[in-house]
Amino acid sequence: MFIKNAWYVAARLEEVTDKPLGRQICGEKIVFYRGKENKIYAVEDFCPHRGAPLSLGFIEDGNLVCGYHGLVMGCDGKTISMPGQRVRGFPCNKSYSVIEKYGFIWVWPGEQHLATEDDLPVLEWAESKEWAYGGGLFHINCDYRLMIDNLMDLTHETYVHANSIGQKEIDEAAPTTRVDGDHVITERHMKNIYAPPFWQMALKGNNLATDVPVDRWQICHFHAPSNVHIEVGVAHAGHGGYHAQEDKKVSSVVVDFITPETETSHWYFWGMARHFQADNAELTAQIKEGQGKIFSEDLDMLEQQQQNLLRYPNRKLLMLNIDAGGVQARKVIDRLISLEQVQNIASDQIPSVNLQ
Amino acid sequence: MFIKNAWYVAARLEEVTDKPLGRQICGEKIVFYRGKENKIYAVEDFCPHRGAPLSLGFIEDGNLVCGYHGLVMGCDGKTISMPGQRVRGFPCNKSYSVIEKYGFIWVWPGEQHLATEDDLPVLEWAESKEWAYGGGLFHINCDYRLMIDNLMDLTHETYVHANSIGQKEIDEAAPTTRVDGDHVITERHMKNIYAPPFWQMALKGNNLATDVPVDRWQICHFHAPSNVHIEVGVAHAGHGGYHAQEDKKVSSVVVDFITPETETSHWYFWGMARHFQADNAELTAQIKEGQGKIFSEDLDMLEQQQQNLLRYPNRKLLMLNIDAGGVQARKVIDRLISLEQVQNIASDQIPSVNLQ
Amino acid sequence: MFIKNAWYVAARLEEVTDKPLGRQICGEKIVFYRGKENKIYAVEDFCPHRGAPLSLGFIEDGNLVCGYHGLVMGCDGKTISMPGQRVRGFPCNKSYSVIEKYGFIWVWPGEQHLATEDDLPVLEWAESKEWAYGGGLFHINCDYRLMIDNLMDLTHETYVHANSIGQKEIDEAAPTTRVDGDHVITERHMKNIYAPPFWQMALKGNNLATDVPVDRWQICHFHAPSNVHIEVGVAHAGHGGYHAQEDKKVSSVVVDFITPETETSHWYFWGMARHFQADNAELTAQIKEGQGKIFSEDLDMLEQQQQNLLRYPNRKLLMLNIDAGGVQARKVIDRLISLEQVQNIASDQIPSVNLQ
Repeated sequence: MFIKNAWYVAARLEEVTDKPLGRQICGEKIVFYRGKENKIYAVEDFCPHRGAPLSLGFIEDGNLVCGYHGLVMGCDGKTISMPGQRVRGFPCNKSYSVIEKYGFIWVWPGEQHLATEDDLPVLEWAESKEWAYGGGLFHINCDYRLMIDNLMDLTHETYVHANSIGQKEIDEAAPTTRVDGDHVITERHMKNIYAPPFWQMALKGNNLATDVPVDRWQICHFHAPSNVHIEVGVAHAGHGGYHAQEDKKVSSVVVDFITPETETSHWYFWGMARHFQADNAELTAQIKEGQGKIFSEDLDMLEQQQQNLLRYPNRKLLMLNIDAGGVQARKVIDRLISLEQVQNIASDQIPSVNLQ
Repeated sequence: MFIKNAWYVAARLEEVTDKPLGRQICGEKIVFYRGKENKIYAVEDFCPHRGAPLSLGFIEDGNLVCGYHGLVMGCDGKTISMPGQRVRGFPCNKSYSVIEKYGFIWVWPGEQHLATEDDLPVLEWAESKEWAYGGGLFHINCDYRLMIDNLMDLTHETYVHANSIGQKEIDEAAPTTRVDGDHVITERHMKNIYAPPFWQMALKGNNLATDVPVDRWQICHFHAPSNVHIEVGVAHAGHGGYHAQEDKKVSSVVVDFITPETETSHWYFWGMARHFQADNAELTAQIKEGQGKIFSEDLDMLEQQQQNLLRYPNRKLLMLNIDAGGVQARKVIDRLISLEQVQNIASDQIPSVNLQ
Repeated sequence: MFIKNAWYVAARLEEVTDKPLGRQICGEKIVFYRGKENKIYAVEDFCPHRGAPLSLGFIEDGNLVCGYHGLVMGCDGKTISMPGQRVRGFPCNKSYSVIEKYGFIWVWPGEQHLATEDDLPVLEWAESKEWAYGGGLFHINCDYRLMIDNLMDLTHETYVHANSIGQKEIDEAAPTTRVDGDHVITERHMKNIYAPPFWQMALKGNNLATDVPVDRWQICHFHAPSNVHIEVGVAHAGHGGYHAQEDKKVSSVVVDFITPETETSHWYFWGMARHFQADNAELTAQIKEGQGKIFSEDLDMLEQQQQNLLRYPNRKLLMLNIDAGGVQARKVIDRLISLEQVQNIASDQIPSVNLQ
């Protein structure tokens, strides 16, 4: 089950080139392409003529052309033309609202009349010169909610990422979780500890001493439908931790957009935005490479966890304090899905009311 | 659904060597082998002893021997012998009528008492020294009827084969379609155009000028159960097109036998027979290589089209004038399948009538 | 269907190292590890916290630690601890009785209170210095009973292993089969024949002439749940065959433990124990390599046989005299499975009786 009436990251901007991109999102097969006025459009990836995937086609004069028999699809899902044919009666494809912003292509897979740019998250780090961003994309064969669980309970770092960002003190610092509407926050603060290797690299990158105690923080934010941003950082101990001055800390935001593909697979857009040395491209590349390696350590665990859950469908999982972030995030998701179902029933009833 | 009472190409002659060949045809697992008197035989690929595939066995004294425990299978499906065993009571395998002709192995997967060599198609080009033939075999994961559609609507050449045989003028010349019993003909004639690369190569191969306008034709013939032969060619413009004298044209027949494997896969025997430079083996090889490359361009499109159709089972496809050939071919297939079902019911009833 | 209340070989000893080993046995996902006091333990491969596979974890202080969030699992299936958590209420994993003996890890997948070391088979060859053993492990995608059939009917050697241990005389010597409780014996004796290549190698390895007639024997022993041991050998002809003196024969025991994974796959632990030149490690390696090659010849046949049987579920297989060993073994298996089911019903009823 997915929230459908929401913006999801569909692709990294550089993925949609002069060729169409076919991608399944929340169970819908969609083709994305750069068309008229250099804008991105998205329609169902199904040619109304004979069912060929439009994503095997090409762009001509800003329109998407089916690569099988030349049907020209409009950005509104209506067929524009086809060689030697009148196309007025052709069935209409679903078209999708798309926004190109913050370096991503965003898509609204649900009811299109509900799509509004106002609902797009505001990502300050993506528009400010004081921030640098690097990231990538993984395809993972597990329920997108297992990835949300993963990111909202960072005690796994101690085990899965023992050699980079994990450290025993994470386990020892109990997190606090609170819910604010569709926003879930789980945070953890560790004082007077030693920075693990990844953060030592970051301290060094920001010209800060690495051999002194630090305060470390992890503030995980879940936002519906399935975005997780994590404020992470270390400051030289005794300078206020999260609130320390810029020259005493290194901090960044782990930026994760988790886009369902099917019930048991998802697209994982991972990245990191940082607020120091923003114009150091070499450091950006170094962090991206490190983060890519670290995040790839989760893949096998997540995919085998999914297989285990499919195999033991009746076995209940525990919901401990460390799981509170994921548990609350799932509650938000469930509530919004229920709301969509109620809205669908309500909108189905409107016409019958009108008939009276 | 397949027509079962018909001849299908099962294999290219060179595929059945001194080893048995296992191949599934119209849902039936069959083993083909060269046995007694150097003839080809075919029986179910299932050893009546313990179910081993007979195609893993070998030929001895013209008989097929199971490679697991040595059962000797007869060409009529009856077990001939087995070491240390009396085999009279062994259950009988289905055996299949097979004909070796025109460079192919033909099989009749349905009711064996209905099989008659008279129903085999007559292929003049395969027996005349004035013709040369080259071809190959692809295994394709899609319904065999999608391949029939493909070959009966050549407007796809403009898109899928844009760099070889495609050209805009195909789209612009409306085809005509007619039905003659189990034979469907779709044809298209283009006048005073320039030959696309493949035909320029053919003109050159036949020592004809390539820089002059030509008339081009495509006459697609569907014959039940699922053979498509396409008369194709170009003639120097103004000499009668299809009816031009031999020294003004290059023409050939695209020869396609489309043999169902399962409901969603088939064996595609493609080839080309040509009526010029028949003894030029180098040209035959060149054309075969070119055709193989061109036809391989269809594979991804067809297989992804199949996936799309499985995903959207209720979505109706369009039937445009360009689709008329495929649509009429499917009508022939449907009619013959219905006829088989009626015959099966009728033959089931005969015994009960006899009992009265 | 599997016998569950029995000892199965789960792994070769060297497979369980300092890392846990995940393996599915009789449909149960199990993790094996070397823990406290250097002993082997086995529990369900499912972390009670969030369902992660424990086999992706590690061993610490003799305990199995989940590699996801650090839950420490006890060898009895009870959670010992988890960072920052009280674990008393955590659901309990199934734990499995395990024995480390004869170079193998043995597991009892069924009712644990029924497990008793007394039921472990006694393998003399594995504990005597007069014997040498070499072997390996294959994963095979077929019902474990097809492998039992294979090993209880060695006429297949003539066909599948024609170049090593097969010879026509196997087919010609009718086997005798007898049943003794849960033990099935099929034996065959061939007199005054020439040794096939594998046995010529063995004769040479034992410094015996290879160019003289021999007597050959094959005595297949099936023991429940699914172990097949085959006494095999050749003796110079006229010296008593199986009963010949040591200096006139070469003999060994083919040692096969066939452990079901799923209904259509199994783990095949193959090997050979020999009673000559026991301290010749080079010969052990040579025999193991030869046997590995020979046994790998069965894989394709068995897996394609399985596919054929799935495809023709209603087709009955023959039960010839050569199949008697397999047929009787299946009867033993079926009887013991029925017995387990009756026991399960009986034990389910005990509590309700006590309530009266």
